[in-house]
Amino acid sequence: MKGSSRLLIPWFAFAVMVIGNSWALAPAGGAEKAIRGVMDAQVEAWNRGDVDAFMKGYWNSEATEFVGSNGIVRGWQGVLERYRKSYPDRRAMGTLTFSDLEVTVLSSSTALVVGKFHLVRESDHPEGVFTLVFRKFPEGWRIINDHTSAFPKP
Amino acid sequence: MKGSSRLLIPWFAFAVMVIGNSWALAPAGGAEKAIRGVMDAQVEAWNRGDVDAFMKGYWNSEATEFVGSNGIVRGWQGVLERYRKSYPDRRAMGTLTFSDLEVTVLSSSTALVVGKFHLVRESDHPEGVFTLVFRKFPEGWRIINDHTSAFPKP
Repeated sequence: MKGSSRLLIPWFAFAVMVIGNSWALAPAGGAEKAIRGVMDAQVEAWNRGDVDAFMKGYWNSEATEFVGSNGIVRGWQGVLERYRKSYPDRRAMGTLTFSDLEVTVLSSSTALVVGKFHLVRESDHPEGVFTLVFRKFPEGWRIINDHTSAFPKP
Repeated sequence: MKGSSRLLIPWFAFAVMVIGNSWALAPAGGAEKAIRGVMDAQVEAWNRGDVDAFMKGYWNSEATEFVGSNGIVRGWQGVLERYRKSYPDRRAMGTLTFSDLEVTVLSSSTALVVGKFHLVRESDHPEGVFTLVFRKFPEGWRIINDHTSAFPKP
């Protein structure tokens, strides 16, 4: 084995790991922008009455959870059914906005979002606060856990 | 420069990064055990009326948050004051248990815990569900975000 080829193995391995780590240490700006993009798309989908498109923000997995004062809803399908039941038509869906979003990127593939939701409907204006845990998948950043608490009605 | 010393730099760098990555890929069992230990210590502290020791489970930072239907409480000190106000004495604190704990380790330094709390008091039995985001610090795993929802009173 020649000296030059003996050098190749560690340099190649080193290069692979540098690249791997530089992803892990990438500035959080890109992640935050991507996450805000997912949430903006959710708001747009909701406000055109498209619950299926809204649900694209959630990880399509049995492990996805929606947590609230009614307990734990498990799985993407379960979360979809909860939305369909709680918001059966455009009138029930109202107009959604998010505010006070705080995005904290915890690792290259994990982030925490705290924020408030506001729903404007003909008969009422439900509001509350949520904590979202996002994870990065090949398809993009997705919510793996949504804990939402409604504020008491005024 | 001799061939043998030229080899040292990449091998050393490679070794450092292998070690770094093996930590990142360490089995989640140790993390889950450590996190359950923090929560067990919280329950023990609560049930002897020691709110200060209970608070050791939370990251001692301005950035720590407690989220619920009353909004967002910010900072370790704020969370402590909320507990002191909501649970002014042993009678109000009652006896705490956690159940149905699901610990999901998301990275070498991030984990998600979903579970239920049960408080047995003379006059009532409040219960609810929580989502905790844990982060690993030099001092150990600590809660950086606690979103708790009480179940409606029966």
